[in-house]
Amino acid sequence: GVEKKILVIPGDGIGQEVTAWGQKVLTTIAKNFNHTFTFEEGIMGHVAIEATGEPLPDETLQKARNSDAILFGAIGHAKYDNDPTLKVRPEQGLLKIRKELGLYANLRPIKLFDELLEASSIKPEILRGADILFFRELTGDVYFGEKIRTADRNTASDLMIYHRYEVERIARKAYEAARTRRKKLCSVDKANVLEASRLWREVVQEIAKEYPDVETEHMFIDNAAMQLIKDPKRFDVVLTGNLFGDILTDEASQIAGSMGMLASASIGDSIGFYEPIHGSAHDIAGKGIANPLASILSAALMLDISFGLKTESQRVIKAVEATLRQGFRTMDIANKHTVNDLMMGTDAMGAKVLENLN
Amino acid sequence: GVEKKILVIPGDGIGQEVTAWGQKVLTTIAKNFNHTFTFEEGIMGHVAIEATGEPLPDETLQKARNSDAILFGAIGHAKYDNDPTLKVRPEQGLLKIRKELGLYANLRPIKLFDELLEASSIKPEILRGADILFFRELTGDVYFGEKIRTADRNTASDLMIYHRYEVERIARKAYEAARTRRKKLCSVDKANVLEASRLWREVVQEIAKEYPDVETEHMFIDNAAMQLIKDPKRFDVVLTGNLFGDILTDEASQIAGSMGMLASASIGDSIGFYEPIHGSAHDIAGKGIANPLASILSAALMLDISFGLKTESQRVIKAVEATLRQGFRTMDIANKHTVNDLMMGTDAMGAKVLENLN
Ligand SMILES: CC(C)[C@H](C(=O)O)[C@@H](O)C(=O)O
Ligand SMILES: CC(C)[C@H](C(=O)O)[C@@H](O)C(=O)O
Repeated sequence: GVEKKILVIPGDGIGQEVTAWGQKVLTTIAKNFNHTFTFEEGIMGHVAIEATGEPLPDETLQKARNSDAILFGAIGHAKYDNDPTLKVRPEQGLLKIRKELGLYANLRPIKLFDELLEASSIKPEILRGADILFFRELTGDVYFGEKIRTADRNTASDLMIYHRYEVERIARKAYEAARTRRKKLCSVDKANVLEASRLWREVVQEIAKEYPDVETEHMFIDNAAMQLIKDPKRFDVVLTGNLFGDILTDEASQIAGSMGMLASASIGDSIGFYEPIHGSAHDIAGKGIANPLASILSAALMLDISFGLKTESQRVIKAVEATLRQGFRTMDIANKHTVNDLMMGTDAMGAKVLENLN
Repeated sequence: GVEKKILVIPGDGIGQEVTAWGQKVLTTIAKNFNHTFTFEEGIMGHVAIEATGEPLPDETLQKARNSDAILFGAIGHAKYDNDPTLKVRPEQGLLKIRKELGLYANLRPIKLFDELLEASSIKPEILRGADILFFRELTGDVYFGEKIRTADRNTASDLMIYHRYEVERIARKAYEAARTRRKKLCSVDKANVLEASRLWREVVQEIAKEYPDVETEHMFIDNAAMQLIKDPKRFDVVLTGNLFGDILTDEASQIAGSMGMLASASIGDSIGFYEPIHGSAHDIAGKGIANPLASILSAALMLDISFGLKTESQRVIKAVEATLRQGFRTMDIANKHTVNDLMMGTDAMGAKVLENLN
């Protein structure tokens, strides 16, 4: 068996409820497959601001650097959303850890479990067979460019900026992945308006030449936002910048039935960072109804990508599948046919997955 | 009757095919209602670059300033999309005319014609009753901020920037519209990451106080891109910036069945500018299969918003409705039940609408 150190950062809102289940799944896998996973816990986000005044305390960052992989929950709190003038904000913690750990590639696989065909607002015949892997650039773009507020507070700006090397490295990762899949890559930008997008497109066109076996398409973000809903099956690997990736992957959650089903992996220099796509969802936080499957599937991604444990990762995915096949549903993936006694809260749903792991 | 001067700018791609039908509808309305509409034609975009070297020749801009309203087609050409290094680009023409004419508010009504319930990739029960009016800011944001490419060409940037007055004026327009509708306004930003969005949110929160009868909600763009597909009926008026508005309204075209159905009005200082949301669509340009209804509905918006001719505007909308009810469809809004002899090209479809106007 392997030995791994995992840092668990539940974060804010429903992150506190669902992350425990990702961790329990990892513990069960370790036991069943004779691995040794040791866990530490760290704080980040609103909870960290409350405790230390900082959204990402040094201690958490140190623990992160000492770990092999990180399981993260969610970040954000209504207090800051309602008061845009606050200077210290939870999200700064997440952005900082992404930057500090060099997590420049955010992988977001979008695939519908057959059992959830009916859970989406999109027609089943449009969805069946859709299977998209997003590569969202994660440490550049308007997220990290200089932010300015004038002294009179009447003008505000953020610099949308990309450097050639940033586009190159994520493009290569995306092309490598496309090679192992259906060999199609769609790069999304707004090159008809933005200079940063024109650089993006130029670089992707160059890297494309290194991968003649992969079919490359370039699409404007507005069109992509439309095509994703109109015909999701046309996409295989989608490569895009930080801001456009944020928008498209949330939108794409409807392809997977619910945001509560989607996991993501952020990789780069060395340590992998795994998190659900859903946010802190303060409207349902503390109610015990959040879907734990995205955290559990984030754990599955960790097993596969950071630890190379493909069999173990597949076991987790199969356990999720089995749970759905048995008819168990959290609120977000229920449909009008779901009978009451199959409707689960966070913990009951998580427990079912654990049962199915054994 | 009224006397109006209308500038017609067909532009690029399918703009050349569909805009004639918007104009014919205006001509028919003028005849039937005893108005005097005089038309001039102008060039813009790729066609203008080919003819004069400029995407927006001075002559076109002069004609625009002398008109009461402008009917525009589409802009863009594959040549520029494939070569991001070209300096003169069609889209610059559109951006320039928006800026020069002070067209700061882009109104995009999204409403499904009952007859097209089945044409969308989204389930009919999700769509039925959806009725959204987008207010997209059109002369600011990362579209117009400074663009820089370093001398080594390895770094590129665009400044995302907003000024207080820009947010104020469009927010007021959106709130005024919400008052005449279901009194709900959703403002979309990314205030958890972007300084420009935090200014946006602060200003909207202030303006909201002037409209206590309208219910205000703030939503992050990633969440909005998801909610729009998950539950479009939750939205009434949506207020957002230039870039986010570009993305969301294209995505929202799936709510209306097809991009080929959506019209938009750009207003501001005085002259109104009317255009389909769809682009030049070079993949189908020249084939005579583009849907002329978005251009026709753009003409309807012109009658209503620029000329205050509500009855005339409604007549156009009713004629479109009647045409759809008769079963006539262009390719983009056909469904598996559409029989062959009801399937129309651009001109046949346009002609049916004209018949129904009489
Ligand atoms: C919380 C927020 C800063 C974050 C982002 O925008 O990147 C989130 O939406 C995500 O997608 O991980
Ligand atoms: C053609 C392009 C510059 C334009 C935009 O991005 O504004 C178009 O997509 C639109 O929405 O009108």
